[in-house]
Amino acid sequence: EQSHHQTYFSAEPLDRLSAKRTDQDWIRTRQKDPRTVYLLFHKLSPMIQAQNPNQDQDQNHTADRLMQFTYEEVKDLLELPGSELVFLGLERTHNWTSDRTLDRTTDQASNPEPRSWFALGSDLEQEELLKRSKDKNCSFPKNHHRDLLRLSQDEAGLVAQSRSVLAWHARYSFCSTCGGRSRVEEAGHKRSCENTTCISHQGVHNTCYPRVDPVVIMLVLHPDQSQCLLGRKKVFPPGMFSCLAGFIEPGECVEAAVRREVQEESGVLVGPVWYVCSQPWPMPSSLMIGCLTVAVTTEINVDQDEIEEAKWFTRQQVVDSLLGGSQAEFVVPPRQTIAHQLLRHWTGLSSNL
Amino acid sequence: EQSHHQTYFSAEPLDRLSAKRTDQDWIRTRQKDPRTVYLLFHKLSPMIQAQNPNQDQDQNHTADRLMQFTYEEVKDLLELPGSELVFLGLERTHNWTSDRTLDRTTDQASNPEPRSWFALGSDLEQEELLKRSKDKNCSFPKNHHRDLLRLSQDEAGLVAQSRSVLAWHARYSFCSTCGGRSRVEEAGHKRSCENTTCISHQGVHNTCYPRVDPVVIMLVLHPDQSQCLLGRKKVFPPGMFSCLAGFIEPGECVEAAVRREVQEESGVLVGPVWYVCSQPWPMPSSLMIGCLTVAVTTEINVDQDEIEEAKWFTRQQVVDSLLGGSQAEFVVPPRQTIAHQLLRHWTGLSSNL
Ligand SMILES: Nc1ncnc2c1ncn2[C@@H]1O[C@H](COP(=O)(O)O)[C@@H](O)[C@H]1O
Ligand SMILES: Nc1ncnc2c1ncn2[C@@H]1O[C@H](COP(=O)(O)O)[C@@H](O)[C@H]1O
Ligand SMILES: [Mg+2]
Ligand SMILES: [Mg+2]
Ligand SMILES: [Mg+2]
Ligand SMILES: [Mg+2]
Ligand SMILES: [Mg+2]
Ligand SMILES: [Mg+2]
Ligand SMILES: [Zn+2]
Ligand SMILES: [Zn+2]
Repeated sequence: EQSHHQTYFSAEPLDRLSAKRTDQDWIRTRQKDPRTVYLLFHKLSPMIQAQNPNQDQDQNHTADRLMQFTYEEVKDLLELPGSELVFLGLERTHNWTSDRTLDRTTDQASNPEPRSWFALGSDLEQEELLKRSKDKNCSFPKNHHRDLLRLSQDEAGLVAQSRSVLAWHARYSFCSTCGGRSRVEEAGHKRSCENTTCISHQGVHNTCYPRVDPVVIMLVLHPDQSQCLLGRKKVFPPGMFSCLAGFIEPGECVEAAVRREVQEESGVLVGPVWYVCSQPWPMPSSLMIGCLTVAVTTEINVDQDEIEEAKWFTRQQVVDSLLGGSQAEFVVPPRQTIAHQLLRHWTGLSSNL
Repeated sequence: EQSHHQTYFSAEPLDRLSAKRTDQDWIRTRQKDPRTVYLLFHKLSPMIQAQNPNQDQDQNHTADRLMQFTYEEVKDLLELPGSELVFLGLERTHNWTSDRTLDRTTDQASNPEPRSWFALGSDLEQEELLKRSKDKNCSFPKNHHRDLLRLSQDEAGLVAQSRSVLAWHARYSFCSTCGGRSRVEEAGHKRSCENTTCISHQGVHNTCYPRVDPVVIMLVLHPDQSQCLLGRKKVFPPGMFSCLAGFIEPGECVEAAVRREVQEESGVLVGPVWYVCSQPWPMPSSLMIGCLTVAVTTEINVDQDEIEEAKWFTRQQVVDSLLGGSQAEFVVPPRQTIAHQLLRHWTGLSSNL
């Protein structure tokens, strides 16, 4: 079974065509093509059209839609110094995904050349940008951890790539090696130091490429395998418990990071580790690596700095929460999170993305 | 089965004790403890004692040894502006690993307090640093891709953490958000912008933490599953073929990155993806995520920029190469690489780390 669509944010509706990023003429032609689609971002927030603003995170909720702009509608923005442009890719002629969102607007039958997509970040005022849309209910959502979870699978995939790369431009516009200004290259996928004598131009290093932060997130099973360990941070909504998680540190493999983070956050020691699935999490640019692991000790000793409380929950308690009964012992994270999918995976309930 | 020791560089002989990094007094006390061990680095190269300089990458080769220094031997270096100090961790009282290298020098029976380890990077001349060792055959190896593969498992794990973090200090001493100088914090695990008005001090971002670059590396199986796809870069030693690999991009899950990189580098389309194991690769700071995947097309069309040649090899050809016969069709990468371990995994030959 292909695991492409297991997790929210991981759809890849476009062919990124990374080899074309260095072909400036080709990129410029694609930019000006009247069929090219621009997604507009303000402070890392995409312009969306809300469909059902009151139905919060409901499974049957109609997806919010990303607003699409043409070259003519944004070409003035492209010239402004506070704008960042990122080439996202070309629509796939053969779509790998099962999600048909993008097909609504494609016109491949009449025009064989696939459309190009770009993300455009602007630092103009929201109002100024919102005026450009003829549609109603448009906005730049404020609460990203909630509002960016209401998109279709394909559009979530587009936002994942766009938001991570734009966040990188926003925080990495200086060369970390010499402190000089850096210049955007490769259609928004590289930044090079403008100082030609800077050692960042020598040897192999990562300073000029967008950053991706790998994180381990794990469902820890009790040695009896009938319970699992979940924790809550102070910032969680009331009653919510989720999987433990943490950044992979330099020099660690996935399995070592799982063992270390579980021990740090809960005091529990774990043995074997199994990879389950992964998810890009563009807040700003994490790669969540989802694992299952079995504990070898059961006493909980939480790291109070990070975790307010951690507890063992029975499989039945988890099933009750996933099924959303009002009697549920705790609240599970939303279905768009990999933590939710790990819980489903363990209980054997099929994915409900 | 615990996969802790499957890959070279992934051993974790120390407890990193990350919560203690902010406790400056504790760190300073550990620094001055006469039992504390310092590893000395020059240009990201650790001081080692070569054991058998002529027996290149032989499986029965005696491991090279990391040179260990005491506080007294390095305390003058700690004061110099070109030095970087990184707290690596404390020896584990209960050792998780099977590798006993570090036990040779521990003295836990007589002294119950575990020893601390630090990595110390210095920009002094090599000769000046080498003088500090009383042992013979000490050096700072030049060819990292070859010379850092000759350590014991535990010492390779120490080098993985040290080298990645020191490489980060070497290339990230300026704030990427404002271009100002940054200051080392948390015992070498964080850098904060010295400019108090910099927006890097606001909100959640990654600019102050060491970078880890996730990479997918995959063994692509032929649809008939009796062959696998390997490629060679121009820089490889003659005859060597290895797994395809590439950096995970922002907004991708592991599986999507595998599909994209295989298609980019070889023109082959792949279907399902299975995670096998992972490996930190401190050149300078990658996390190799090793996968198996099955192709759905077989025609090869290499990306000439990156790959000189890619070919399908039979299982028998791979087994012959792994067993090192002189008749072998091609040369496999060394056993310390995850590519080698993926090939062993597929052929069913047990790991020979
Ligand atoms: N790349 C990163 N981005 C953000 N925080 C990080 C990063 N690496 C380490 N951290 C630290 O890790 C903490 C979160 O802990 P954890 O997610 O459990 O590793 C944050 O509060 C930061 O102090
Ligand atoms: N973090 C990174 N470090 C080094 N090179 C990178 C990084 N991200 C992207 N690249 C580019 O990826 C190329 C290697 O291709 P691949 O490993 O197949 O993705 C390098 O030559 C760089 O141009
Ligand atoms: Mg955490
Ligand atoms: Mg943590
Ligand atoms: Mg952590
Ligand atoms: Mg590659
Ligand atoms: Mg590549
Ligand atoms: Mg690549
Ligand atoms: Zn520079
Ligand atoms: Zn700054």
